[in-house]
Amino acid sequence: MNFDHSEKSLALMEKLNKFMQEEIYPVESEYHDLVASNSNTWETPALMHSLKEKAREQGLWNLFLPEEYLPYGAGLTNLEYAPLCEIMGRVLWSSEVFNCSAPDTGNMEVLAKYGSDAQKQEYLVPLLEGQIRSAFAMTEPEVASSDATNIATSIVDKGDYYLINGRKWYTSGAMNNNCKILIVMGKTDPQAPRHSQQSQILVPIDTAGVTVVRPMSAMGYLDEPIGHAEVLFEDVKVPKTNLILGEGRGFEVAQGRLGPGRIHHCMRLIGCAQRALDLTCERVEQRIAFGQPLSKQQSVRESIAQMYCKIEQARLLTLKAADHMDKYGNKVAKNIIAAIKIVAPKMACEVIDEAIQIHGAAGTSQDTILSATLAYARTIRLADGPDQVHMMQLGKNLVVQQQGK
Amino acid sequence: MNFDHSEKSLALMEKLNKFMQEEIYPVESEYHDLVASNSNTWETPALMHSLKEKAREQGLWNLFLPEEYLPYGAGLTNLEYAPLCEIMGRVLWSSEVFNCSAPDTGNMEVLAKYGSDAQKQEYLVPLLEGQIRSAFAMTEPEVASSDATNIATSIVDKGDYYLINGRKWYTSGAMNNNCKILIVMGKTDPQAPRHSQQSQILVPIDTAGVTVVRPMSAMGYLDEPIGHAEVLFEDVKVPKTNLILGEGRGFEVAQGRLGPGRIHHCMRLIGCAQRALDLTCERVEQRIAFGQPLSKQQSVRESIAQMYCKIEQARLLTLKAADHMDKYGNKVAKNIIAAIKIVAPKMACEVIDEAIQIHGAAGTSQDTILSATLAYARTIRLADGPDQVHMMQLGKNLVVQQQGK
Amino acid sequence: MNFDHSEKSLALMEKLNKFMQEEIYPVESEYHDLVASNSNTWETPALMHSLKEKAREQGLWNLFLPEEYLPYGAGLTNLEYAPLCEIMGRVLWSSEVFNCSAPDTGNMEVLAKYGSDAQKQEYLVPLLEGQIRSAFAMTEPEVASSDATNIATSIVDKGDYYLINGRKWYTSGAMNNNCKILIVMGKTDPQAPRHSQQSQILVPIDTAGVTVVRPMSAMGYLDEPIGHAEVLFEDVKVPKTNLILGEGRGFEVAQGRLGPGRIHHCMRLIGCAQRALDLTCERVEQRIAFGQPLSKQQSVRESIAQMYCKIEQARLLTLKAADHMDKYGNKVAKNIIAAIKIVAPKMACEVIDEAIQIHGAAGTSQDTILSATLAYARTIRLADGPDQVHMMQLGKNLVVQQQGK
Amino acid sequence: MNFDHSEKSLALMEKLNKFMQEEIYPVESEYHDLVASNSNTWETPALMHSLKEKAREQGLWNLFLPEEYLPYGAGLTNLEYAPLCEIMGRVLWSSEVFNCSAPDTGNMEVLAKYGSDAQKQEYLVPLLEGQIRSAFAMTEPEVASSDATNIATSIVDKGDYYLINGRKWYTSGAMNNNCKILIVMGKTDPQAPRHSQQSQILVPIDTAGVTVVRPMSAMGYLDEPIGHAEVLFEDVKVPKTNLILGEGRGFEVAQGRLGPGRIHHCMRLIGCAQRALDLTCERVEQRIAFGQPLSKQQSVRESIAQMYCKIEQARLLTLKAADHMDKYGNKVAKNIIAAIKIVAPKMACEVIDEAIQIHGAAGTSQDTILSATLAYARTIRLADGPDQVHMMQLGKNLVVQQQGK
Repeated sequence: MNFDHSEKSLALMEKLNKFMQEEIYPVESEYHDLVASNSNTWETPALMHSLKEKAREQGLWNLFLPEEYLPYGAGLTNLEYAPLCEIMGRVLWSSEVFNCSAPDTGNMEVLAKYGSDAQKQEYLVPLLEGQIRSAFAMTEPEVASSDATNIATSIVDKGDYYLINGRKWYTSGAMNNNCKILIVMGKTDPQAPRHSQQSQILVPIDTAGVTVVRPMSAMGYLDEPIGHAEVLFEDVKVPKTNLILGEGRGFEVAQGRLGPGRIHHCMRLIGCAQRALDLTCERVEQRIAFGQPLSKQQSVRESIAQMYCKIEQARLLTLKAADHMDKYGNKVAKNIIAAIKIVAPKMACEVIDEAIQIHGAAGTSQDTILSATLAYARTIRLADGPDQVHMMQLGKNLVVQQQGK
Repeated sequence: MNFDHSEKSLALMEKLNKFMQEEIYPVESEYHDLVASNSNTWETPALMHSLKEKAREQGLWNLFLPEEYLPYGAGLTNLEYAPLCEIMGRVLWSSEVFNCSAPDTGNMEVLAKYGSDAQKQEYLVPLLEGQIRSAFAMTEPEVASSDATNIATSIVDKGDYYLINGRKWYTSGAMNNNCKILIVMGKTDPQAPRHSQQSQILVPIDTAGVTVVRPMSAMGYLDEPIGHAEVLFEDVKVPKTNLILGEGRGFEVAQGRLGPGRIHHCMRLIGCAQRALDLTCERVEQRIAFGQPLSKQQSVRESIAQMYCKIEQARLLTLKAADHMDKYGNKVAKNIIAAIKIVAPKMACEVIDEAIQIHGAAGTSQDTILSATLAYARTIRLADGPDQVHMMQLGKNLVVQQQGK
Repeated sequence: MNFDHSEKSLALMEKLNKFMQEEIYPVESEYHDLVASNSNTWETPALMHSLKEKAREQGLWNLFLPEEYLPYGAGLTNLEYAPLCEIMGRVLWSSEVFNCSAPDTGNMEVLAKYGSDAQKQEYLVPLLEGQIRSAFAMTEPEVASSDATNIATSIVDKGDYYLINGRKWYTSGAMNNNCKILIVMGKTDPQAPRHSQQSQILVPIDTAGVTVVRPMSAMGYLDEPIGHAEVLFEDVKVPKTNLILGEGRGFEVAQGRLGPGRIHHCMRLIGCAQRALDLTCERVEQRIAFGQPLSKQQSVRESIAQMYCKIEQARLLTLKAADHMDKYGNKVAKNIIAAIKIVAPKMACEVIDEAIQIHGAAGTSQDTILSATLAYARTIRLADGPDQVHMMQLGKNLVVQQQGK
Repeated sequence: MNFDHSEKSLALMEKLNKFMQEEIYPVESEYHDLVASNSNTWETPALMHSLKEKAREQGLWNLFLPEEYLPYGAGLTNLEYAPLCEIMGRVLWSSEVFNCSAPDTGNMEVLAKYGSDAQKQEYLVPLLEGQIRSAFAMTEPEVASSDATNIATSIVDKGDYYLINGRKWYTSGAMNNNCKILIVMGKTDPQAPRHSQQSQILVPIDTAGVTVVRPMSAMGYLDEPIGHAEVLFEDVKVPKTNLILGEGRGFEVAQGRLGPGRIHHCMRLIGCAQRALDLTCERVEQRIAFGQPLSKQQSVRESIAQMYCKIEQARLLTLKAADHMDKYGNKVAKNIIAAIKIVAPKMACEVIDEAIQIHGAAGTSQDTILSATLAYARTIRLADGPDQVHMMQLGKNLVVQQQGK
């Protein structure tokens, strides 16, 4: 047992931190302004492209893809990538600079793991190059998607092609101008056993019958230029070779992406929370109320101490999940992966909310990152399954395990 | 002691509920769409004006002004007005329909209470008629306004006029096209005793030197068409008759508006929370997950029960505060007024957040009112003093009182 | 609506407060010492008997029994009795002084409501006189008694008598030397519909086959001299006339006692919490840490403010429940009765726990009432059904009602 | 970074677990019965002595003393000892079996670190042999000991000897028959700088003028046979050689014991909490309510999941603190040591309280360990400084560090 990062990790962290200091923080709010002032707010500003080039030159690129997918990706373990992911999480839009942003990371992992050679050539390579973006269409407005077996979009085998009909929403990334491909989850066989009904299929966004209906708001934010789309599929035809892995294996494919995806989300949120704490520690020295800096108030000190305790605990839990996923795989590590999904988003909500309270009006404004960050953290309490589903699963597992003792 | 509303209250509640059912709920989202699609999002849609006429015809007008200000207002007690305010709170924009929306209500109360005849004629009458809107410029970006003695805008007596310089933000209402008048708080005498430095003064928004700089975001929402402005005052000159009550009496004027203002905010938030609970109770019967409606899940039932308990307790506390303010005045009721400001906004945040969790993705979207409502509730934890200031005051008072026993 | 007590209530409260000041507080800890130093700790000290006489002389006697049971009891409404119950709650053992202590109150109410004339003569009258004490044997160790249909003690009709077999625990009051009679809940017909299986029956504690096995600890306290017994029933025979109301009506009888019983428990707990707050407000002025009294710490002020807010809200909720029970009966008031059972014990736990934290080591000791009071509050979160059962019921009711709107 | 225990740790854990399974769990409640039925409840039962022999034979002895104190102790690092400490924590009285129980561990560490050769010979050796027990007299009833500079007991240099006067309480261990020696903290120089006023001195408990006044209750528990004493020092004379380290160095000595002491307490509490969770996981499969085992209730699953998340996070935090203390020392690790003291006791309180709620009445009784364990956890929120003092320090440190970035 050892609670310090390896030399390799520390060197990468230092390099990434340096890049953040030199290239990202200085343009953090400029980027938001560029997006907002764009005639098309769904277009990624040129600034992003130049930052991507710089990052790629420095080898800070595709850091998320582990060794098993070499030569794709940087070949880092989850445990090595995790602290980098935290650092990127400090600026909401910075992951894309390093080609490490959701949902592309999950999609690339799925393609690398389950894609056919043709699928890899057509979609994985340009994604790895950062030339296109992608989306994952899973959640549906009409059903409780927390129970993924409810997902109702139909994918019907018509002999020569699959015919897709359904309505998705919160398809993150699909609003972006550069989004070219969707991975869609839907039912190929409604009569099959519960966990064999679903399949995942590749649908180019410009296929006839695909309509991007509207951007969905996430706690008041449209998250331009990436966004979360409502997408309508009306008699959409795609070649049968677009199916990933095989009919009825949609859950298997979904499971494959979830482990690392959760660690990424959680580490990013830990970065958000740590940044909120850092900003708070600066703020409380500067603001004077009732005759002294806020930092002298015992209640403020207690808040700050609590924020630290919550962040550090969630961080260690997530790092352990990464370590165990590396060593033992998703399945063995399932309890702790469930645990981080329960813990980290809620922790981030609490910490950032407290930071807002201490910041006063500024905390609610566009002048700090806090309220946008809280919105992100809040939505992750629902994305990839609401807290309750993970607690259900974890609670169940623990009871079963105890009986086995 | 009696926990049922009077006949008079019940009749008013029924009338108002009927109006909400017939006129407001059916156009609730249409109104938001009208605002969003307006070429100028700071212009109040015509729909509002027609609704205002209807409400006025039915006598549902200026309900907030108590008997002491007759013939202005409806002459209701705080206890009679409170449940009406809750009902209006169920739809974020509906208070204006009844000419009962902040900050106009507070401004009207201040003018009715402390205004000179000329001030009343010029500003109170058109406000009561619903012809113009107003704003209250208090909070400043550069200082911790939680300690109101920090407020730094200068109001200098230049013999013939006052000269005003300073920067305000979160001046709610000042973005609206129809906003004509600002009440500005600032220092007339920085050398006076701490609580005699501040004054309040009327500043027409079109006065030279007044610049509405930008709309401030409140947890991701601009709250169009009313908004929260950053306002810059550069060598603004106003007649000396624009001063309210007298130099150095800014705190006194502020105190006068705070008691009722807090009850209004809290009752509106209770309406928000109750609506969130009502929506949740509907939702959980309709959504099926893991083989049964959500309403059969013990955890969902516990959530709903907790929401009810929190709402009902905050409601009773606020109604008691209204009752005691009516009977004994602001000063005697100060503890319970502080208490409702501590309790109700936080309660609303918790209840609405839980409703969002149960609603899933829809709860975070523009398709329900929940996330906009949460943003409102969250900002009220900071407006009119953050929770911490009220806890400081209440805690202090209680210790002093105990020593006196 | 009116949030002030009636003249009648105020006069009674003043009278009771005066008695507490003059007779109870001065001997509060002496009473505990007398119990502890008694050779038999299950014997009520003579001090209690002399206090009872004084209270009875002053008419502070049987205050809990409402008008419908006159000439028994004081004929107060629940709303009139509630604040008196709160005052008694300030000293853990004081309710008995006024013949208002559980479980006797519930037992007397059951007998007054459902008892035959003979049952009243034999048991109700001496209980009302304060001559004997009683217990209610419901909870069983072997089953989850939170679901009262689980209760398994058998009551078998043997023609001439009933034969009772079973094991009960947490039969409060049954350890006391003066406890003469048990009301026992058990199954007369295991084949009947779920809610018609149970009956309640009177069992004199000295009946052959009744064994008081041992005192049960409640969070470390044996609560001498009253106690909570484990009681074994082995082939216990009682006359058929000992049955209350009729076979299969055990739930009906149980419901009858629960409404008022919950208000009593909740009001007592509010008294406990208020006392903890009062003690805290005194303490924080006296203790100096880090150069100033604790009362100057912002965090302490926030704690005190929160304690006040929680207590006052729970108090209003409970008083409303009392008012509605008086006006509309248990059944109509069921939601708010469930709500107080959910709210008040948990509130008391939180408030007293916070008081302990502020008191430091003293708060955990026998030198303050805090830890004993917390133990009482904690057990009430389980007694009469754990929080979860009440949340289940309340959540269910609210969903059903919403569908009816 | 590596989240798995070393081979050495795992082997020790297995050995200790085996001992617990074979020797401790089977007599867990018998031990409590032996204590309770002893004519002198402050006498350690013979069972303890035989268990100690067995443990010592197996080399499970003095596991707490790190390498630097070899040949004393087992030479384990904090990180190696921590999981063993957790395992011992599962049974409240079991640490003593392995000569690893507080306050002896802290006292031995102090003697090993700062003791003179004579002090070591006289007190450390018999303590390490498990022949005598000891106590640490720090907290005082008359002052807020949370601010240790308040401690007022006087230690006056009388030339030939020191003269001690003062009153202590919650001197844990001093009730036990076998307690021979007290380490007493007091002021040698009230005029010295704030942190140089205090000294620590060895006082044999049978010295004239030392009176063990009474056992203090800790949340309703006397914790026999060890106990927490009130101790009065009246003109107590001890040789000048009894002073530890030197005059005015009391804080330095106190700091030396606190780091490891906190890790021990926290790990024990994690063991308590884990045991509570294990018991809960067993219980919920066995108890049937409303037609199904409790384990099928979503709310129960959520509770269990939350318990796991809280425990695992606190465990990782504490293990990291142990690792950093081993690598970098107390001073560098001060923030995380403060953090575990804030986190672990509160976590244990929450987890055990939830376990009690799920256990129902049994959870409050003497038939489970839960309520005694909660009492222990609750008192640790105050021992060694209340949560608030650690939050004050941690909050302060974090703000200072942020300014340095």
